[in-house]
Amino acid sequence: MKNAELGIMRHSAAHVLAAAVLRLFPETKFDIGPSTETGFYYDFDGDHSFTSENLVAIEGEMDRIIGENLPIIRRDVTRKEAEEIFLEIGQHYKLERLADIPSGEVISIYTVGDFVDLCRGPHLPSTGAIGAVRLLSIAGAYYRGDEGNRQLQRIYGTAFGTKKELDEYLNGVEEAKRRDHRRLGKDLQLFTVDNDVGQGLVLWLPRGTILRMELQNFIAKELRKQGYQQVMTPHVARLELFRISGHFPYYRDSQFEPIPDRENLDRNLTYGELSAALESGGCGGFLIKPMNCPGHIKIYANTPKSYRDLPYRLAEFGTVYRWEQSGELNGMTRVRGFTQDDAHIFCTEEQLETEILGCISLVQKVLTTMALRDCRVRMGLRDPSSNKYIGDEEIWEKSENALRRAVKRLGMVHVEEVGEAAFYGPKIDFVTKDVLGREWQLGTVQVDYNLPERFHLNYIGADNQPHVPVLIHRAPFGSLERFCGVLIEHFGGDFPLWLAPEQVRLLPVGDGQLPYAKEVENLLLERDIRATVDSHSDKLGAKIRRAEIDRVPYAAIIGAKEQGSLGVSIRSRIRKDHEGDHSAAGFVELLVEDIRTHRLPDALL
Amino acid sequence: MKNAELGIMRHSAAHVLAAAVLRLFPETKFDIGPSTETGFYYDFDGDHSFTSENLVAIEGEMDRIIGENLPIIRRDVTRKEAEEIFLEIGQHYKLERLADIPSGEVISIYTVGDFVDLCRGPHLPSTGAIGAVRLLSIAGAYYRGDEGNRQLQRIYGTAFGTKKELDEYLNGVEEAKRRDHRRLGKDLQLFTVDNDVGQGLVLWLPRGTILRMELQNFIAKELRKQGYQQVMTPHVARLELFRISGHFPYYRDSQFEPIPDRENLDRNLTYGELSAALESGGCGGFLIKPMNCPGHIKIYANTPKSYRDLPYRLAEFGTVYRWEQSGELNGMTRVRGFTQDDAHIFCTEEQLETEILGCISLVQKVLTTMALRDCRVRMGLRDPSSNKYIGDEEIWEKSENALRRAVKRLGMVHVEEVGEAAFYGPKIDFVTKDVLGREWQLGTVQVDYNLPERFHLNYIGADNQPHVPVLIHRAPFGSLERFCGVLIEHFGGDFPLWLAPEQVRLLPVGDGQLPYAKEVENLLLERDIRATVDSHSDKLGAKIRRAEIDRVPYAAIIGAKEQGSLGVSIRSRIRKDHEGDHSAAGFVELLVEDIRTHRLPDALL
Repeated sequence: MKNAELGIMRHSAAHVLAAAVLRLFPETKFDIGPSTETGFYYDFDGDHSFTSENLVAIEGEMDRIIGENLPIIRRDVTRKEAEEIFLEIGQHYKLERLADIPSGEVISIYTVGDFVDLCRGPHLPSTGAIGAVRLLSIAGAYYRGDEGNRQLQRIYGTAFGTKKELDEYLNGVEEAKRRDHRRLGKDLQLFTVDNDVGQGLVLWLPRGTILRMELQNFIAKELRKQGYQQVMTPHVARLELFRISGHFPYYRDSQFEPIPDRENLDRNLTYGELSAALESGGCGGFLIKPMNCPGHIKIYANTPKSYRDLPYRLAEFGTVYRWEQSGELNGMTRVRGFTQDDAHIFCTEEQLETEILGCISLVQKVLTTMALRDCRVRMGLRDPSSNKYIGDEEIWEKSENALRRAVKRLGMVHVEEVGEAAFYGPKIDFVTKDVLGREWQLGTVQVDYNLPERFHLNYIGADNQPHVPVLIHRAPFGSLERFCGVLIEHFGGDFPLWLAPEQVRLLPVGDGQLPYAKEVENLLLERDIRATVDSHSDKLGAKIRRAEIDRVPYAAIIGAKEQGSLGVSIRSRIRKDHEGDHSAAGFVELLVEDIRTHRLPDALL
Repeated sequence: MKNAELGIMRHSAAHVLAAAVLRLFPETKFDIGPSTETGFYYDFDGDHSFTSENLVAIEGEMDRIIGENLPIIRRDVTRKEAEEIFLEIGQHYKLERLADIPSGEVISIYTVGDFVDLCRGPHLPSTGAIGAVRLLSIAGAYYRGDEGNRQLQRIYGTAFGTKKELDEYLNGVEEAKRRDHRRLGKDLQLFTVDNDVGQGLVLWLPRGTILRMELQNFIAKELRKQGYQQVMTPHVARLELFRISGHFPYYRDSQFEPIPDRENLDRNLTYGELSAALESGGCGGFLIKPMNCPGHIKIYANTPKSYRDLPYRLAEFGTVYRWEQSGELNGMTRVRGFTQDDAHIFCTEEQLETEILGCISLVQKVLTTMALRDCRVRMGLRDPSSNKYIGDEEIWEKSENALRRAVKRLGMVHVEEVGEAAFYGPKIDFVTKDVLGREWQLGTVQVDYNLPERFHLNYIGADNQPHVPVLIHRAPFGSLERFCGVLIEHFGGDFPLWLAPEQVRLLPVGDGQLPYAKEVENLLLERDIRATVDSHSDKLGAKIRRAEIDRVPYAAIIGAKEQGSLGVSIRSRIRKDHEGDHSAAGFVELLVEDIRTHRLPDALL
């Protein structure tokens, strides 16, 4: 079913909802009931407060109305007719809504059985054409969304063409809730956000830090293979740096406020005046860094470079801070502080395509390893008819072609979006789908001819003349916070062994097995496998349950039999063929191999 | 020779310097000539500008005067007599200095040969008692240190009891200059500081980043062994957090200015008013973090804790930012942003001593590995007569004793300094001596009963009752910037193999050996040894020289002979017994072993 048709069906379902409520609660007053992106709702008013039992009954009545296949009848009326109709049935909200309709517009009413609504439509011809409906929840909603008004009762529901589609949707919603990274982040103690520290400023708990470090180490290893050099730059720098780069004051609105320089600060200025002085460069001041590029550029510029030094690739897991409205913040995916898997490549134009190829293949490598198999590329190109772009036409063509060729060579699905380039060069963005089919925007590769000019960068070419290098900005995952958030939801908390914060939980059946369990733990720790012993004195069942709740991929049960045979009995959340009896030594080797190969959980193979 | 005696001798040497100048440049006007911490100087005025050749001549004349063993004669005079003397010899600076002496004070003059000085002494009886002198430099110095005055010529020198002591001192100065981390940091491309980024804000260059990461990984490994958990916390947090901890506004002067909250900012206030509002909590605001503790405390508090969870050890290489006057900043040792090897241990009182023991043994382990063999402990204890300390007398005694016992048990040299405790608990500071015998203050271990109270921390004890944990703050090396600075000077740039940014440079004698050199490089890279090939086409001598300048510990020369025998010919800056011919495979194994054991350079064994 197409989106437009689905929208009409859901709108009709909203009318059926109102008709059902009219049958069961005839005193109810009706406001409005539109379709939404994922379903529909209707706002009601009345002395009765709807309960969840009522919801079941109302849904039953809706099914009945759908079964009755009542016609949904439209009638165009005059304003006066409409007023008379709603006055007669005592629906004052409808009268108020009617008053909103500008004079001259067509006024139409729709009827389903006894229910009459003011509505511009369109609707299905009859209720029988509605597929499967489900009422979902009740919430309060102020009339016209204004806190000063009376609170109405809003009933949410959804509708699909078939029962199967409805069930799939409901399962998806349930699964997404179960996988919500904010919920799993709390349950699995991966990260937290604290009001005193500030919303949007993530505290990485010990288990989350392991996850992040494994990810960082994995990326860092790939970067070393590709000839990147790691650097570290401070999180605060003089405003001057960002004034040269152009990030300040042009992007002020997405930055934290600047920090005045205490040694050059007139406390009698108003903040507005001080702010203007900071913007104009009239006094010093610092900025908590919104970008890593200026720092990397300063490292490039620290010593003279020749063509032999290029491509010069600098990488940093650099934490940057940007201002987001407090209302926009959300878990790890919309934050005020985040760590970019950032890098800047200074190269010649001839090297551009090969370098872009390297960036993309890194993304492919990581996404494949994570079973994020569906990734597409959005290519932002210049709009040749616009004058917002700097630089030569020829250079634009070259770099757009370099991007296009690299994407094609690696066989990535891509769309080209004209007019979506940065003003200083073309770019590509990566968009991936997780296991639930949800799309996530990750990072970016951008070609930049602008900053090298602004910072007067150069290299001595083979011709002994100075040339300006091209700069590639790339952060393929954009933000580690966001990417970890996506991974948590994608894996639903059941991480591959190499990423799991706790990899093995050893469960001695009785205290008698504790010493042997410790021996096995040491075997595992010696091979850098993150293992712990559950030394609580409760029953095995409770220990198994705890390991399940904590999503430990492997639980190794150790009873008298296992102790006797120097073995372990394995339960696994992620790999069924490893379950059952193993020698302790053999078990260690299996795990080492799965870690080395970044083996995926069964569910994602 | 004691410091006081050395001071007198140097003061006399300053008079001898003036006497020598009088002999060679009779027209010179004399201002003053005191001893300093490391020598002496004298300020002169005259039409002649001293050259370095003059310095040699003057030093020769000083030696002559010392050889003549002239008496140094004191005479107390009246103000009038003194005026007549200096008027007669035309020394107007002396007349001005004479006018500074308050009436009623004794006025004395000292004579060496023809040279008469206004001086309160004391001095040696005769010039022959002066040991070995050396003139060091000439610099401009404003009369009375006031830029508005005439610039005088200051000649610096030093003197020691014996020639041997003088030579040792001069060698030490030379060596310290050669090892200066600012100079080596630039020469070896380890770090840089850039004016646009800001003084005191270190940019870690690729080679320095390797050094730092090796150090961090080494420490992190020891921390894992000791049961620490790594965490990561943001570099900016709400002021509220630091208001609860007490860091703001009490330590405002050593912090960057706070960052106003854009969503709660009255731009019409003067900065002074806004600042007061931020201090009083009257509006939100953020602070770039000066400490990691509040973040770690929030992580502790994130889930309920029981006595089974203690000791709970959280570690972070946390970069903090503190305000230092711009005039105080220096290389990596006095900065505005630095990374603490920070950790916080939440434990019971019973666990205190064992935990302190763990902290100290970590310090010992790292210092031994670095051949920083001389480390002492300064213990800061409470002054029982002062009322600036919070908490029970009994608890103070307990924790001071725990500190004292731990230090004694590990046999560390220590001094106890009464009154040097923090107001919330006792502490120890580590002070180490480098290879030149210079002392460096490193980090600290502090016992804290205060912050756990302020943040209402607790754990459920075995008695099922809530208790307040003790908090240990520890950052044994204080700051990685500072510690790396110390290590650069201590090793003089010749790092042990495991720390060296570039470990092996392969030097093919001719282009014909390039493919084989690449093969050897791959052998090394496969074992994670940082090797590069010098593929320049110049002569072997030039390649060797470059490797020396870059302080690469191993240069492997690869000529036709080596290529034929699958060997390498080794030159080493750090390990003579590894020099000479090796098979390529055998060479790799030697290096792997030296890295694994953190072997020290020969010079430090």
